[in-house]
Amino acid sequence: MAKIKLGILGGGEDSLIGILHRVAANMFDQFEIVGGAFDVKHEKSLKFGEKLQLDSSRVYKDLDDLIAKENSLPEDQRMQAVSVLTPNFLHFPMAKKLLKNGFNVICEKPLTTTYEEAKILNEIQQKTKVIFAVTYTYTGYPMIRQMKTMIKNGEIGKIQKVDVQYYQGWINPLIHDKEKRSATWRLDPEKSGISCCIGDIGTHAFNMAEYVTGMKVENILADLNYLYEDNPMDIDGTVLMRFPGKAKGVLRASQIATGEENNFTVQVYGDKGGLKWEQENPNYLYLLKEDKPLQVIKPGHGFLSEFSLEGTKLPPGHPEGIFDSMGNIYYGVAMAIKDNSKFDGAYPKLNDGLRGMNFIEKTVSSHKKGNVWIKMED
Amino acid sequence: MAKIKLGILGGGEDSLIGILHRVAANMFDQFEIVGGAFDVKHEKSLKFGEKLQLDSSRVYKDLDDLIAKENSLPEDQRMQAVSVLTPNFLHFPMAKKLLKNGFNVICEKPLTTTYEEAKILNEIQQKTKVIFAVTYTYTGYPMIRQMKTMIKNGEIGKIQKVDVQYYQGWINPLIHDKEKRSATWRLDPEKSGISCCIGDIGTHAFNMAEYVTGMKVENILADLNYLYEDNPMDIDGTVLMRFPGKAKGVLRASQIATGEENNFTVQVYGDKGGLKWEQENPNYLYLLKEDKPLQVIKPGHGFLSEFSLEGTKLPPGHPEGIFDSMGNIYYGVAMAIKDNSKFDGAYPKLNDGLRGMNFIEKTVSSHKKGNVWIKMED
Amino acid sequence: MAKIKLGILGGGEDSLIGILHRVAANMFDQFEIVGGAFDVKHEKSLKFGEKLQLDSSRVYKDLDDLIAKENSLPEDQRMQAVSVLTPNFLHFPMAKKLLKNGFNVICEKPLTTTYEEAKILNEIQQKTKVIFAVTYTYTGYPMIRQMKTMIKNGEIGKIQKVDVQYYQGWINPLIHDKEKRSATWRLDPEKSGISCCIGDIGTHAFNMAEYVTGMKVENILADLNYLYEDNPMDIDGTVLMRFPGKAKGVLRASQIATGEENNFTVQVYGDKGGLKWEQENPNYLYLLKEDKPLQVIKPGHGFLSEFSLEGTKLPPGHPEGIFDSMGNIYYGVAMAIKDNSKFDGAYPKLNDGLRGMNFIEKTVSSHKKGNVWIKMED
Amino acid sequence: MAKIKLGILGGGEDSLIGILHRVAANMFDQFEIVGGAFDVKHEKSLKFGEKLQLDSSRVYKDLDDLIAKENSLPEDQRMQAVSVLTPNFLHFPMAKKLLKNGFNVICEKPLTTTYEEAKILNEIQQKTKVIFAVTYTYTGYPMIRQMKTMIKNGEIGKIQKVDVQYYQGWINPLIHDKEKRSATWRLDPEKSGISCCIGDIGTHAFNMAEYVTGMKVENILADLNYLYEDNPMDIDGTVLMRFPGKAKGVLRASQIATGEENNFTVQVYGDKGGLKWEQENPNYLYLLKEDKPLQVIKPGHGFLSEFSLEGTKLPPGHPEGIFDSMGNIYYGVAMAIKDNSKFDGAYPKLNDGLRGMNFIEKTVSSHKKGNVWIKMED
Repeated sequence: MAKIKLGILGGGEDSLIGILHRVAANMFDQFEIVGGAFDVKHEKSLKFGEKLQLDSSRVYKDLDDLIAKENSLPEDQRMQAVSVLTPNFLHFPMAKKLLKNGFNVICEKPLTTTYEEAKILNEIQQKTKVIFAVTYTYTGYPMIRQMKTMIKNGEIGKIQKVDVQYYQGWINPLIHDKEKRSATWRLDPEKSGISCCIGDIGTHAFNMAEYVTGMKVENILADLNYLYEDNPMDIDGTVLMRFPGKAKGVLRASQIATGEENNFTVQVYGDKGGLKWEQENPNYLYLLKEDKPLQVIKPGHGFLSEFSLEGTKLPPGHPEGIFDSMGNIYYGVAMAIKDNSKFDGAYPKLNDGLRGMNFIEKTVSSHKKGNVWIKMED
Repeated sequence: MAKIKLGILGGGEDSLIGILHRVAANMFDQFEIVGGAFDVKHEKSLKFGEKLQLDSSRVYKDLDDLIAKENSLPEDQRMQAVSVLTPNFLHFPMAKKLLKNGFNVICEKPLTTTYEEAKILNEIQQKTKVIFAVTYTYTGYPMIRQMKTMIKNGEIGKIQKVDVQYYQGWINPLIHDKEKRSATWRLDPEKSGISCCIGDIGTHAFNMAEYVTGMKVENILADLNYLYEDNPMDIDGTVLMRFPGKAKGVLRASQIATGEENNFTVQVYGDKGGLKWEQENPNYLYLLKEDKPLQVIKPGHGFLSEFSLEGTKLPPGHPEGIFDSMGNIYYGVAMAIKDNSKFDGAYPKLNDGLRGMNFIEKTVSSHKKGNVWIKMED
Repeated sequence: MAKIKLGILGGGEDSLIGILHRVAANMFDQFEIVGGAFDVKHEKSLKFGEKLQLDSSRVYKDLDDLIAKENSLPEDQRMQAVSVLTPNFLHFPMAKKLLKNGFNVICEKPLTTTYEEAKILNEIQQKTKVIFAVTYTYTGYPMIRQMKTMIKNGEIGKIQKVDVQYYQGWINPLIHDKEKRSATWRLDPEKSGISCCIGDIGTHAFNMAEYVTGMKVENILADLNYLYEDNPMDIDGTVLMRFPGKAKGVLRASQIATGEENNFTVQVYGDKGGLKWEQENPNYLYLLKEDKPLQVIKPGHGFLSEFSLEGTKLPPGHPEGIFDSMGNIYYGVAMAIKDNSKFDGAYPKLNDGLRGMNFIEKTVSSHKKGNVWIKMED
Repeated sequence: MAKIKLGILGGGEDSLIGILHRVAANMFDQFEIVGGAFDVKHEKSLKFGEKLQLDSSRVYKDLDDLIAKENSLPEDQRMQAVSVLTPNFLHFPMAKKLLKNGFNVICEKPLTTTYEEAKILNEIQQKTKVIFAVTYTYTGYPMIRQMKTMIKNGEIGKIQKVDVQYYQGWINPLIHDKEKRSATWRLDPEKSGISCCIGDIGTHAFNMAEYVTGMKVENILADLNYLYEDNPMDIDGTVLMRFPGKAKGVLRASQIATGEENNFTVQVYGDKGGLKWEQENPNYLYLLKEDKPLQVIKPGHGFLSEFSLEGTKLPPGHPEGIFDSMGNIYYGVAMAIKDNSKFDGAYPKLNDGLRGMNFIEKTVSSHKKGNVWIKMED
């Protein structure tokens, strides 16, 4: 069977994540990168295309150019999917055009810069049949897939407590310097939307809480931190969450947890057990039971769920990492495009991106109103 | 120099913590246990006194008996300090009598069952010169002392984030069984005061947050969990905290974190670095700095603070534990009684117990009022 | 610049490691897989080539076919490098032909099945100018590269102790079953050479000891374990090693360390410090100094060596794994082919494979002679 | 029941381990320290006795004084046991006199300075009925007791591999300085016996290997390291060990593993599983099984062996340490003196000390003869 022809928007020479998507796309021999528009400057884009040994006729000036020319190709040569790796504010217009022109879309998170935009994309997609993935990268880890499956299978019983943490420290040296904090795009609402910390990493944590539990957050109450009055963007926050039933949750995110790198953790406790995971040691899943030894579950073993095993390429003890996690998401997208999906949750969907935007806006709103409860929309 | 003569109230055959206090008191050859009232039944008390090879004439019927007879002894034979290890609701009346009769007091936490009672004790103590310790056991760990010292010395700069977690799972099997939850004393407000989870372990976390940072919490907002309507006691809760300046904190406590044993952690981040500690691995203190290797600090090294080193008895690599931590607190009390204190924080004081009671009441109040901000009293 | 055209021998549908090499080859956009012979059955090979979307004319019947046809292509279309992923006994004849025909070679370990064969390959290579890599995969980890650099720079002073461990348990259920142990190819000297445990994993540990220290083992004394007399292959062994000067080493390898997955560790101690690393947690390098906090070094930081940083694609806290390690080796090979090598040790060389074969034979010999010292050849 | 009256030899003001023995002796209210000879200078001894609030009439000039006067006391007041905490070369003469005079003995390790002496003690003890403990402190940890019990119960099947490591770095700065190395008593054979590293820590590892497995080492082959020719004492060594059947072992000990504190580990693999433990994190026991999650066993749980549970004083999650481990050994001795022993292995016996001395001499002998196999005596 032919590989899926993939285009890429953004992800050029200066991009950090371009390599992540390219390696992921190539990992399972499902995609073939055929072209794209890698940079706003066409020359840089062409040069980068050369490095990838692409046919220069498919290194486009911009998205309109791409759509026009790809649509003129015979169907079996045409791009079937396009990855959107551009700055946040471009996600919406690009994704919208791609959707309207029938391309499957793989979009970096956050999906858009406002909840409103996300709803528009959602409406469009519901009328089409295209696949739309939002790359919440961490959901592709085999141990996260195992956690989701075990919770679904009742291994820890009825959930009563959800705890997610996403601590980084990278913004610390920037926020304390007046000049730097005014020059950082993440701290500029024009470029990033209304939230820095919650928008960038809080959404990952929120998505993960819903992903592994299979539950939807109903209400939230947030307390954000804005260290300086001359900057309108949160760089730290805690969000209380209420799930259906009596399950409660707490989400902690920070970019001023000085010295932390990418310390994202998930802990879920049910009435029959608990499960814990840490992103920086992604190949360990901890199962806690009352008065039993702690169990440390690692990838690749025959006793794991099929969903987890699908995401592990080598025998136990050969650590895979974040590139492999993203590779699993791309594989999930490929299977969906080929109408061959085996596992729910094989890739994060547009609705995950939509809820992420909903969460950001409700969180900021809760804080601004004096740290009050706000209902999430369905 | 003569050892300090120590009496014990409670802590008899059925007590879990009696041994903790006895080993701690004996550890540095500062105290001599000379008597007490170990059980409400005098016979059991006498039998226990025999096991400890105490003079039976100093195994008392009750506290009044103890006070009367001890006061009749020559001063150099008299008990100088009394440890109160009885059930919570007896702390207040016993401590009050001891204070009024001039005994130094070592009292288990929580100090009392209401904030009102705690304030009364505080007033009495301020008029006397006796030493009054509240055994927040964990403050005696050498790495906590190191953390406190490093923060005080500015090692991590100005604090901007405080995160404390105290997760246990032991109440999980009790809370879900109607009969058991009505028969557990911890879940009975008559015996435990108005809070279960926050009262028992949340206060430890609160105390630790103030202990290591040297800052006072000013405002709190709490969300507690009460799983069943037929039981009025919280078994899980999250508390948002605001410190002076822009420092924010979050305290998470749970007794339904199924499978957790005694998972108490402290993380403090300043603008120059972060410090982290876990009670279950108490001999490791983690120092995080921007773009530097993580440093793992262990007890007993020459580069540590004097305050930390005082609490370590053997060379590096010989793990000491919770008995040793309590031993350090008893040593601190002994030095205070001998008017020889070297380190602020060598033992938790009555004021720590007072603030703990304040915290419990404000937390429950915040929750009951709909999760609103409440100001802590000074 | 054009990508390097790569062929692959073996690595087809049934191969575990095929995907490892393909992902690694693609990772840095340096190689383009253009063809190969993936299976002894040409049909299976063709089908696999289809999956990779290769031109079927370059999916060859066998190596002779490949050589003949590739050599007839214009130079700029011809394969420049070939990866040999076939069973061990085929490494030698294939590598030999490839060398003689001027192809650059990337060969799986062990290089050959005898030291004699390895010496022959070595002689041939010394007369040619081709690049020859032996894929000791673990040398590509960024933290191993950092360790090698730090040792070279004198960070831990003069080496006095080297300790390598490679523990697995996978052969345990096979070795205890008479039928299974006679049917396992690893336990068959015809297919595997004279050693199972030392040959398969002991060589990795030996290579790593020499790689990170930059020293050569001079003498060895080995004690191997052969649990059953009806099987001639070691499944466990310890080797004492002597380096130049007074540095001593010990290598422990086992396939009957029941329950171990791929527990490969390296510890090196010098007179100024120590360094430790574990393959299953490859993103942590531990630096020990006298009376200083332990330092935990992680990838991607600005303070690391250039050699280490070259092997990390994302910012700190985004764990990379074994695929990324192999990717770094392929990148090293690419740079060498392009005559653009920056770092010594960027890929393991033929000489590393040669020493590995030397080590296997000397180890078995030492054991058979009664656990006596044997001199390694230069 | 009356406490056992205990005397102490050595362990005075300058002693590191005096406090360890005193805390341990007091821990379970089984012993009462009544006197001793704490220092060679009687005055210092008297002063120390005062600190312990001992009756000065029982602070003796020396051992002869102690024996004479204690023997003249009524039996119910007399010391029943004496702890020997003096420098190594005094263990033998003191223990011998104590044995001959019918005192129960608790002796620090190494038991003596020569195997010959140890045999003499052994012969004497076999004729008497006194209890004789050698304080291999680490055998008192609850998780070591659990490990021993699980191995005995066949949990990991037939043992096929034993691996013990004892790495320290403290001698590193001394050994490289000519003056210091000639002035360190550990490096002086007159004071320490014929071995430094093996004698001090290698014996701990050897004892542990036999203790947890319940097997006896039959043959050993050793390679020691002596860095400087002007010093005759080993500071590093590896010992190959052969147990009955086909089980093999390896023991690694070092005092030049720079930066290591007290890194003592035990790994035992059987045909049904593996067990691992680390002294610096003594409350974790790791159980490995084929294709099952790793199990992390912690103290205090109901599912543990009675032998393990006896050694834990608080509920799970309250870390106990090395003082508690030694406390368990003292408790074992108390039970033996009271003829109430419940568990084999509750305290290390004279025979353990004897085998330790045998091991030291055979190890040095094997090395000196050119690293050859030597048979251990029974």
